[in-house]
Amino acid sequence: MRINVNENFHKLDNNYLFCEISRRVKACKEKKPEAKIINLGIGDVTLPLGRSVIETMKKACDEQSKKDTFRGYSPDTGYDFLKNAISNYYKKYGVSVDKEEIFISDGAKSDIGNLTDLFGDNTVYITDPVYPVYLDSNIMSSCKAVFMRATEENGFLPMPRAEYKTGIYYLCSPNNPTGAVYSREKLDTWVKFALETGSLIIFDAAYEAFIKGDYPHSVYEIKGAKECAIEVCSFSKTAGFTGIRCGYTVVPEKLNCESYSLNKMWRRRQSTKFNGVSYITQRGAESAYSDEGVAEWRKNIDCYMKNATRMAEFLKKRGIEYTGAYNAPYLWVKCPEGYGSWEFFDYLLENCHVTVTPGAGFGKCGEGYFRISSFCSPADMSEAIKRLGTLL
Amino acid sequence: MRINVNENFHKLDNNYLFCEISRRVKACKEKKPEAKIINLGIGDVTLPLGRSVIETMKKACDEQSKKDTFRGYSPDTGYDFLKNAISNYYKKYGVSVDKEEIFISDGAKSDIGNLTDLFGDNTVYITDPVYPVYLDSNIMSSCKAVFMRATEENGFLPMPRAEYKTGIYYLCSPNNPTGAVYSREKLDTWVKFALETGSLIIFDAAYEAFIKGDYPHSVYEIKGAKECAIEVCSFSKTAGFTGIRCGYTVVPEKLNCESYSLNKMWRRRQSTKFNGVSYITQRGAESAYSDEGVAEWRKNIDCYMKNATRMAEFLKKRGIEYTGAYNAPYLWVKCPEGYGSWEFFDYLLENCHVTVTPGAGFGKCGEGYFRISSFCSPADMSEAIKRLGTLL
Repeated sequence: MRINVNENFHKLDNNYLFCEISRRVKACKEKKPEAKIINLGIGDVTLPLGRSVIETMKKACDEQSKKDTFRGYSPDTGYDFLKNAISNYYKKYGVSVDKEEIFISDGAKSDIGNLTDLFGDNTVYITDPVYPVYLDSNIMSSCKAVFMRATEENGFLPMPRAEYKTGIYYLCSPNNPTGAVYSREKLDTWVKFALETGSLIIFDAAYEAFIKGDYPHSVYEIKGAKECAIEVCSFSKTAGFTGIRCGYTVVPEKLNCESYSLNKMWRRRQSTKFNGVSYITQRGAESAYSDEGVAEWRKNIDCYMKNATRMAEFLKKRGIEYTGAYNAPYLWVKCPEGYGSWEFFDYLLENCHVTVTPGAGFGKCGEGYFRISSFCSPADMSEAIKRLGTLL
Repeated sequence: MRINVNENFHKLDNNYLFCEISRRVKACKEKKPEAKIINLGIGDVTLPLGRSVIETMKKACDEQSKKDTFRGYSPDTGYDFLKNAISNYYKKYGVSVDKEEIFISDGAKSDIGNLTDLFGDNTVYITDPVYPVYLDSNIMSSCKAVFMRATEENGFLPMPRAEYKTGIYYLCSPNNPTGAVYSREKLDTWVKFALETGSLIIFDAAYEAFIKGDYPHSVYEIKGAKECAIEVCSFSKTAGFTGIRCGYTVVPEKLNCESYSLNKMWRRRQSTKFNGVSYITQRGAESAYSDEGVAEWRKNIDCYMKNATRMAEFLKKRGIEYTGAYNAPYLWVKCPEGYGSWEFFDYLLENCHVTVTPGAGFGKCGEGYFRISSFCSPADMSEAIKRLGTLL
């Protein structure tokens, strides 16, 4: 063919982090078929969905089987019943979000990727290390990326700097992979900076439900954020919906750029290139916000966080530096002296059959670190701690 | 804010066709609250899902409630069990599609819109009248659109012309809104043209299940199509999945553009900006291709097509020109002399409380036509024919 393709695709890394991990794990299994490999690299939930969500979804299936209750296309931006449930959830944090500002989708990853459709040529500021989608989706749309270093020195929480200009700022709090979370004061500084420079913050709150301390769950807890921030959130990690697919994005009505309303633009984008979320899924998501639903997923999150605490205690005892584990299901751990991320990944895989996620896979500043996830079973966490104990 | 937005959004029509229809219907209802308005404008299925799909989805819900059968993230491009079912469905038409070429998604609309991510600056050729998404998604990505006129003279099936150059050609067969369908010979001419000019065909087969005559259901029934065509298809109209959300796109492995493989590019796009389809949905879609599942949706399609046939017979008796109704659930009808599309829409709404879809909403060549959909109930179709009988 002789059509013009999007040449930015050549600038993307070929080896997506998790593909490379799979490749190395597979090679290890072939070499040692008897080894029981424990996966602490997993970024996916493992506990089943709560009874109330399941029963609600089955009831929704039944509705789809009868003429009088059958529903075809959902509204492009989602059903009001779910938007109301989300709006009520926000009220817990003192945040008022109108249903016209809420857009239901099949997940945060889709929204974060698709949001680039709304923008022209901008400088995008991305923390390093970071969830790879922010960078890759911007490479695809040829935006210039500037990395904001998340290091020990700044507590893995980059802040505005004098040289930063008007642009799009991606903030993820609690952070994947570091588990660091912005305080109210720090986020307030960010919002003030965005308002002063005319910048946009894209705030990824996918892990908000894991916060234990007094930290903002939503960027809109900060005054002025409705004039400078889009918030993306998801039922995946909150309610265990990774296999069900539901997320939402808040685009405030006050978010304007000259004559353009970002709210109207996103509505137009979604009504043109998206056709709504499964009715069954939306009913399930609604019930995840019922009292019973919340109690069910809280129990799951508690289980994951117990895993995190046990691993944290082990690391502390051994004098191994880490962050996270308190407001997020991840631990961001320093490799022993002299080891690179991938080197130490190989070392752990080879010597105790435990997989982690090499920090370097999340960006240059991730070199020398690895991520431990607590989404495994308590038994696997015990066994992993035992094995690591013999080695570290 | 002072960031750069995608200014192409200003070039989009504000009033999406179906919003404008809703507005006018609402106004009519306010004026005549007692009127029972019959909707022949509906592009959505109305019959409930078959028993086997429902039972399968409920079983999948149960699997998500147990630790041993719980599934988190689906593979980004879909489960093999569904890809295999689709691959087998293609075999009925003598088409061989490998599972590496099949990409499961939440629907054809998403895929058609998102495919623009893969391309640079091209001339896109779009039939007129047409499903609005082809044009709007290309306006968003600033491609130049050339319209290919679908008129009485060419049987509503535009063919290659001497002045057409290398580009991206959107073909929809059976067509929405005209109901026209390309013959094997005509599609062969298109494929030869694409191969000669180095062009890409994006073939929308969303209505293939409605074909009764000996017409190709898939572009890949034509020799050479695997080197020049992407096919987008959906469970929406086939299996009544508009509220369940599942579609698929075939990007052949032989589809290359210099050093770029479109298959690899689409895989990268989907793995970056998409996170797979609900497990429950994918199981439902798989069962829609079982013998029992097919028999169930065939019955629904037969019901819709009986509606279409009855309306077609009525129009024929009254000497009103139309096309479609045989291989598609739509009738494309000429307005009586002197009436424009919207004018006649208003006339029908006002005088017999029947809504249709004004042809002009699908493009300039749609002016003077309107679309009748057969997705209503048999009772509504009877009543609509009765009312129209007193008027036309």
